[in-house]
Amino acid sequence: MILFASLRVKHAALAAAGAISALGACAFLWASGTAESLFQQGREGTPACATCHGAQGEGGGGGMYPRIAGQPAAYVENQLKDFRDGRRANPLMAPMVAGLTDADAQAVAAYVEGLNAPRAQAQKPDAVQAVLGQALVTVGAWERGVPPCAGCHGPALEGVTPNVPGLARQWPQYLAAQLSAWQQGQRAATPLGLMAKVAHGMTAAEIAAVSAYIGSLPDGEVPGMPRPEKPEAWTPAPQSADNFVPPPDAAIPAGPYGDLVRYGQSIFEQTSKYAGEYSRNGLSCRNCHLDRGRLATSGPMWAAYVHYPEYRKKDGLVNTMQMRIQGCFRYSQNGVVPAADSKEVTALVTYFHWLATGLPTGIKPKAVGYPRLAAPEQKPRPERGARVYAANCALCHGEDGQGRKSGAHPAFPPLWGPQSFNWGAGMHQVDMAAAFIKANMPYGAGNTLSDQDAWDVSAYMNSRPRPQDPRFVDDTEKTREKFHANHEFDFYGKEIDDVLLGGNKPLEK
Amino acid sequence: MILFASLRVKHAALAAAGAISALGACAFLWASGTAESLFQQGREGTPACATCHGAQGEGGGGGMYPRIAGQPAAYVENQLKDFRDGRRANPLMAPMVAGLTDADAQAVAAYVEGLNAPRAQAQKPDAVQAVLGQALVTVGAWERGVPPCAGCHGPALEGVTPNVPGLARQWPQYLAAQLSAWQQGQRAATPLGLMAKVAHGMTAAEIAAVSAYIGSLPDGEVPGMPRPEKPEAWTPAPQSADNFVPPPDAAIPAGPYGDLVRYGQSIFEQTSKYAGEYSRNGLSCRNCHLDRGRLATSGPMWAAYVHYPEYRKKDGLVNTMQMRIQGCFRYSQNGVVPAADSKEVTALVTYFHWLATGLPTGIKPKAVGYPRLAAPEQKPRPERGARVYAANCALCHGEDGQGRKSGAHPAFPPLWGPQSFNWGAGMHQVDMAAAFIKANMPYGAGNTLSDQDAWDVSAYMNSRPRPQDPRFVDDTEKTREKFHANHEFDFYGKEIDDVLLGGNKPLEK
Repeated sequence: MILFASLRVKHAALAAAGAISALGACAFLWASGTAESLFQQGREGTPACATCHGAQGEGGGGGMYPRIAGQPAAYVENQLKDFRDGRRANPLMAPMVAGLTDADAQAVAAYVEGLNAPRAQAQKPDAVQAVLGQALVTVGAWERGVPPCAGCHGPALEGVTPNVPGLARQWPQYLAAQLSAWQQGQRAATPLGLMAKVAHGMTAAEIAAVSAYIGSLPDGEVPGMPRPEKPEAWTPAPQSADNFVPPPDAAIPAGPYGDLVRYGQSIFEQTSKYAGEYSRNGLSCRNCHLDRGRLATSGPMWAAYVHYPEYRKKDGLVNTMQMRIQGCFRYSQNGVVPAADSKEVTALVTYFHWLATGLPTGIKPKAVGYPRLAAPEQKPRPERGARVYAANCALCHGEDGQGRKSGAHPAFPPLWGPQSFNWGAGMHQVDMAAAFIKANMPYGAGNTLSDQDAWDVSAYMNSRPRPQDPRFVDDTEKTREKFHANHEFDFYGKEIDDVLLGGNKPLEK
Repeated sequence: MILFASLRVKHAALAAAGAISALGACAFLWASGTAESLFQQGREGTPACATCHGAQGEGGGGGMYPRIAGQPAAYVENQLKDFRDGRRANPLMAPMVAGLTDADAQAVAAYVEGLNAPRAQAQKPDAVQAVLGQALVTVGAWERGVPPCAGCHGPALEGVTPNVPGLARQWPQYLAAQLSAWQQGQRAATPLGLMAKVAHGMTAAEIAAVSAYIGSLPDGEVPGMPRPEKPEAWTPAPQSADNFVPPPDAAIPAGPYGDLVRYGQSIFEQTSKYAGEYSRNGLSCRNCHLDRGRLATSGPMWAAYVHYPEYRKKDGLVNTMQMRIQGCFRYSQNGVVPAADSKEVTALVTYFHWLATGLPTGIKPKAVGYPRLAAPEQKPRPERGARVYAANCALCHGEDGQGRKSGAHPAFPPLWGPQSFNWGAGMHQVDMAAAFIKANMPYGAGNTLSDQDAWDVSAYMNSRPRPQDPRFVDDTEKTREKFHANHEFDFYGKEIDDVLLGGNKPLEK
């Protein structure tokens, strides 16, 4: 590992966000008395929370009142203030919380996070709903802009501190009501309009199914992708690359080939778990290739599969798919290169072969890589990018860019620092990252940033420290000359905010 | 290497052929006086050969009389006897050779082989003819059943002793006249009707081009495949596997990808030359995959490319294309396994990727492997197969199955013995070899043997000794149990003609 001595945050927006976090850390101690009383008994002008949400925060009214026990404190606090100040319009809640001070809100929220209610008894989903719900939770419906619930709410749907609520153990009726409210514009979809986008892509049947399915999930269970007992009947057919649809998961065949496809898919989804020997950071393949390598706008693996072998300037060689994958482990995973015929690489190649079913070999699909982004109007600047980051990215990736976990599970990937990709990864190039960001970020809301914002935030991300380029020779200047000099948008070897990027040490193994 | 102690030939047909060869070895000594006189001066009733064919065998009459200098003696002898006995109907030659005894024919033929005439002055081919001619010499036009000239006449067209005449330095007019005569049935196409099949697939323009091109080839030059200065304009398009046509050689792009495609093609064509480090026998990839892996009936590489990765019972693993190629080196090349990312394997994979351009990924083409052959009516028997072999195969592969060279160049591959594939190769299975033989052999005349003949000759070939199975464990019986017992048609571990096949020693490295 590398010590990042100088991760000082200099920008005003981030400093403010940091201050809020620091306050939050003290809140629980102060709250243990007052907050409990406020929650359980209320006070003059402020009814007890427990009246509707239950003494243990279990919710009630058949799901009219949500379960709030265990929700991230910062999330609860924000909701309370949003109700109070009208940012979240709710005629029922507004008068209840009108009398809360900021300190009250913080204290009650911390108390709520500490609650541990038993789960509500809810009607089980039927078999069809269970399959559909599981699919929406784990893989989403990206073709309609619907990312999987687990993509933001965490693999076990426990939420992500501080901004993302847990969905686990929630009343299905409440989940369904909120999705409908977002869909119909009855609830403002803060932040970033994300849940409105999600809900707009869903049918009524899907809202019912995913709500019922989530309500039925056993505590703490991480749902795997749906796997039918028998593969779905499915006949592969030739397809054009222009409107290519990879085969459905449910059609993955039984037997060793299908098993290897699924293993490759698992590595792709959770790289450090399934190929941990070769990964040294918190990233997974899917972080740069959304929808498990299927999404046309984020370097889909089906497009890469039929395109490789291809010559790459990067190493001056014709790269097979295997060699290309090795490059991802070396740079993007900041890891150790697995053998070209290791079971991990073979599994990934087999997964990509499956994804590419029906696609013509050797005809370069337009979808290879990321959608080309026009040259920036103004030279990309980290200073402007910091503001874009604070407004659009910090929510998930953290003010410090170190990503966030949902309990023990990876949730949002680290964007710089020791747990991110190194200076040899393609994503450190400002133009490549800008193209990715423009088309795909914020997660579930691609193509909402302006081009210039995408360029700037990419420059910000890629002007932070990250692990050394493993091709490092002698010193940073020589390494820059050899591998980074010919690129217009590359911060390697430059000094930004008093930090020499790619600072003078080789990568520790 | 293995010592094959017991390659005794027991069958009548082969013994007879052997006896003729033994006589031939003495002929030249006897001929040095008599034969020269017969050739140069003639004798009562037998005109001098030199009158028409020239004092040095250079031919004449503007190509009406062929150059015969340096032709394989056995070939010349056979032609003389065929003219004399009416098997080759030629009203000009028949009276000339009517007075020759068998011994005369043998002696004159040996004398002719020793002649070394200067080449004839012939009109050069034009640029279009040169390209077309080179293509026909080196790659043929398999889609019309035309194998490359070099496939039988040797890479430098010097002929293959004893049965295949050289074409190098021949008069173009003579070559064109013979091709036309075969095409129009004016010359009997012995042996096996091969040249009639070839000529029937050719246009008049092709006959003119290939004749002119051959006439212009510098002495001893091995023509490479045509390589245009600029790649041919060619737009790849999706194709169905049913009538798939791999891209034309001329369209191989310039640059590193195209260079690697060509390198892979070279390995495929001449494996021991271009991947000699990993090959320990006289076989090349193209020997089992005709037309450089393009021909639909002989395990085309484009079909394999889109089909792999696939599970194989043989090793109980999902095999990538790379792993499958490694298997070929281990078994079919009886060689050393190159690394999955060695330049040789990468070049072959890249060549196959190119061949598969436009073919849908992951949809198994019918052409994978060899065309399925119906179960044999009678159990395949080596004894019957020996007769099929003598009549159809020995001509090229030799009575001893050890293949033949054209000068220093490989011409026809060894089918058994130390220089052939080992007991682990798929081709040692009688059913697989029978399917290959039926569809593809004799070379250029596939689908002419009966099914039963294909089964029987496969049984004959695969009941001869060959290098040990590299998976050998402890002893032959145990190895048979483990790797060969579940197969209906597998001679490994059986005793045939007093030889224990797969005899009791491990493969020497």
